Amino acid sequence: MSAPLRIGVAGLGTVGCGTIAILEGNREVLAARCRRALVVTAVSARSRSKPRPVPMDRYRWHDDPVALAHDPEVDVVLELIGGETGAAPAVIEAALQAGKPAVTANKALLAYEGARLARLAEGAGTDLAYEAAVAGGIPIVKALRDGLAGNRTTGVVGILNGTCNYILTTMRETGRAFEDVLKEAQELGYAEAEPSLDVDGHDAAHKLALLAAIAFGIEPALDAIHVEGIRQVQAVDIAYAEELGFRIKLLGIARATERGIELRLHPCMVPVATTLAGIDGVFNAVRVESDAAGSTLYVGRGAGAAPTGSAVVADLVDLARGFRAPPFGVPAAELAPPSVASMSEHIGAYYLRLTVDDRPGVLADIAACLRDEGVSVESMIQRHRATDQPVPIVMITHETREASLSRALDRIGHLDTVREPPRMLRIETV
Amino acid sequence: MSAPLRIGVAGLGTVGCGTIAILEGNREVLAARCRRALVVTAVSARSRSKPRPVPMDRYRWHDDPVALAHDPEVDVVLELIGGETGAAPAVIEAALQAGKPAVTANKALLAYEGARLARLAEGAGTDLAYEAAVAGGIPIVKALRDGLAGNRTTGVVGILNGTCNYILTTMRETGRAFEDVLKEAQELGYAEAEPSLDVDGHDAAHKLALLAAIAFGIEPALDAIHVEGIRQVQAVDIAYAEELGFRIKLLGIARATERGIELRLHPCMVPVATTLAGIDGVFNAVRVESDAAGSTLYVGRGAGAAPTGSAVVADLVDLARGFRAPPFGVPAAELAPPSVASMSEHIGAYYLRLTVDDRPGVLADIAACLRDEGVSVESMIQRHRATDQPVPIVMITHETREASLSRALDRIGHLDTVREPPRMLRIETV
Repeated sequence: MSAPLRIGVAGLGTVGCGTIAILEGNREVLAARCRRALVVTAVSARSRSKPRPVPMDRYRWHDDPVALAHDPEVDVVLELIGGETGAAPAVIEAALQAGKPAVTANKALLAYEGARLARLAEGAGTDLAYEAAVAGGIPIVKALRDGLAGNRTTGVVGILNGTCNYILTTMRETGRAFEDVLKEAQELGYAEAEPSLDVDGHDAAHKLALLAAIAFGIEPALDAIHVEGIRQVQAVDIAYAEELGFRIKLLGIARATERGIELRLHPCMVPVATTLAGIDGVFNAVRVESDAAGSTLYVGRGAGAAPTGSAVVADLVDLARGFRAPPFGVPAAELAPPSVASMSEHIGAYYLRLTVDDRPGVLADIAACLRDEGVSVESMIQRHRATDQPVPIVMITHETREASLSRALDRIGHLDTVREPPRMLRIETV
Repeated sequence: MSAPLRIGVAGLGTVGCGTIAILEGNREVLAARCRRALVVTAVSARSRSKPRPVPMDRYRWHDDPVALAHDPEVDVVLELIGGETGAAPAVIEAALQAGKPAVTANKALLAYEGARLARLAEGAGTDLAYEAAVAGGIPIVKALRDGLAGNRTTGVVGILNGTCNYILTTMRETGRAFEDVLKEAQELGYAEAEPSLDVDGHDAAHKLALLAAIAFGIEPALDAIHVEGIRQVQAVDIAYAEELGFRIKLLGIARATERGIELRLHPCMVPVATTLAGIDGVFNAVRVESDAAGSTLYVGRGAGAAPTGSAVVADLVDLARGFRAPPFGVPAAELAPPSVASMSEHIGAYYLRLTVDDRPGVLADIAACLRDEGVSVESMIQRHRATDQPVPIVMITHETREASLSRALDRIGHLDTVREPPRMLRIETV
């Protein structure tokens, strides 16, 4: 039995308290698995007096998280403060510079600063671990970096935000509108009062940047990701998807193509028979496509005190066992700048929904716009209504280049008989 | 860059050649990930002249795999020979006794001898790794042992044999009989000429023994597993399952109960809406239930040269990076003998199919047998037919003890009006 691993916890919110609860509750089995004790020795947060679900009086208290990182009774520092600036990077940098491993759940910080922090860790001969930053309780960082280490990855496709998946699932099950379901999710605590980080896709994009970095040995490239959230998904599109044999999911996709790596995060239509289509509610899922293992899929809870704490503790077990791997799978100095494929070059099938006047010649005009750009239609739903209200036309295209489709939609949107901006959703079949 | 890791491969069948193909094909990315080269230096097989998909002339040849284990130019030994006796254990023991790590895909050997070999490895200060022994390309050993190391596991449920899953899937899709589909699977190479290891559940039981050992910190306990294969699954049961909203899957289940650990491998009816029900064809899937992460699911290809080779190479990457964890998660000396719950104490719902004479009083007699044992019926399908042929009665019971159900079925089977032995399938809802 080696000496205990002494842990300092900076940030005592949901994840910090959830992590401490696991370390205390599973203390004995953890000691057996690591052949040494995992012991919390020091904690830090903004408010010492705030009520918390686990008692803190047995640990050394630091008002300053950087002081916690320098505490001689701390061997490894957990950064569970969050945020891309301020205390979070300060405490990680202090730990690494002191030669102490840092464990974090901070996806935003790593999506921006991951390559720099990985270099800092490697330069100091220590470690930076972040299993908890991606997909909560699913050990996907380890699966991709260690479990699939023999493979060349060709693609990663994930449902990476439980709030969005809950909203899309509830919209489908109830037929209700986005704003209505969002409001309920906020009341239930499934969505934040300020929902933009989730519903506009930023949180999922942070996670995609990290997965793509490991998968392809590239620097995390948040700015290179094409990001669209779910605000524009309408109940009527969900209903048409169902009718056409699809589900709408917010997917993060990183895929190697001849044109570079596609990095995109947007609502997709996926065939209802696929496993990803059946991942509902707050669950996350990641499918990895790789040359030897083929397609593998990982499903679990993407958030919450216990699932995220599970991931933090897994990193601590690695450190306690002396496991060392480069944070992004290869040494930070070897991470390549990403060669990103332009969205305009994306090739795929598309769902289109147009709102048009119900009179002769409308379809001919639309068909001409598509034909002129080389976009061919695989199937169409048009229902005549005996009213003078605008009517919907729904189409599924064959595979086409996005630039061609965009030009066609731009022309279609300017037709006199087209009453609303055309709606488009990308279809993801594999 | 450290010195290369020199690999000796004993056994040049499907998995051996698949592993070498990955090591050669992904040589550069592996060197980056490990910060050292992974180099095959020596190989061994029964026949040197047999044609193989990868050239062997660049490696040192050993007729005797034990001599390969002793080769001074071999740092780590891959045992890909298979079998519970003879060369396979001999080469692993030789490697471990020489202080060299052994990597194996040999689920049968480990299911019988895993605890002893783990003690041998730990005593020699070296490692025994076996990611490839369970569920092929799915990195489930690492997920359970490392990724979920913070958790107490409460249950593991898996589709662990691709041949059986392929046969059950094809039976459902085509309505054909077991023997017919098995024959086709043999012709297609999805099933062995001697299919017993797969279709009688032994192969899946080997894997379940290993998963349960990691999950619960117990010695692999093959003999303690209740094993039933899929030979008794009839097309008519698959059709009734479909009608009742279920799919039939061969599941391996290890679950902590108040009565001890349930260890069972048998066909189950699972609700069609669950993710496991949708895992079709040759795919494997493992669901882990644990206290912090909650329910997590892992899906992928369970066999084949490349997926299994992917798992072998992942173990080599671990070794090259210097990662060391106890083979079954805790030191071998701390593995507990399993405290196994008796099948007769199992509590669950059941599907029953009886073949009876179509005349008055039959149902009353059957109902009396069930009532006398305290078994209550949740739903029933009985269709009158205007013939003098025997007719089926299908029932779903409420939760009941298996001993009670067995007694009731024994009495029912002896009724004059019951024409065939009653058929029973356990329902697995969670």
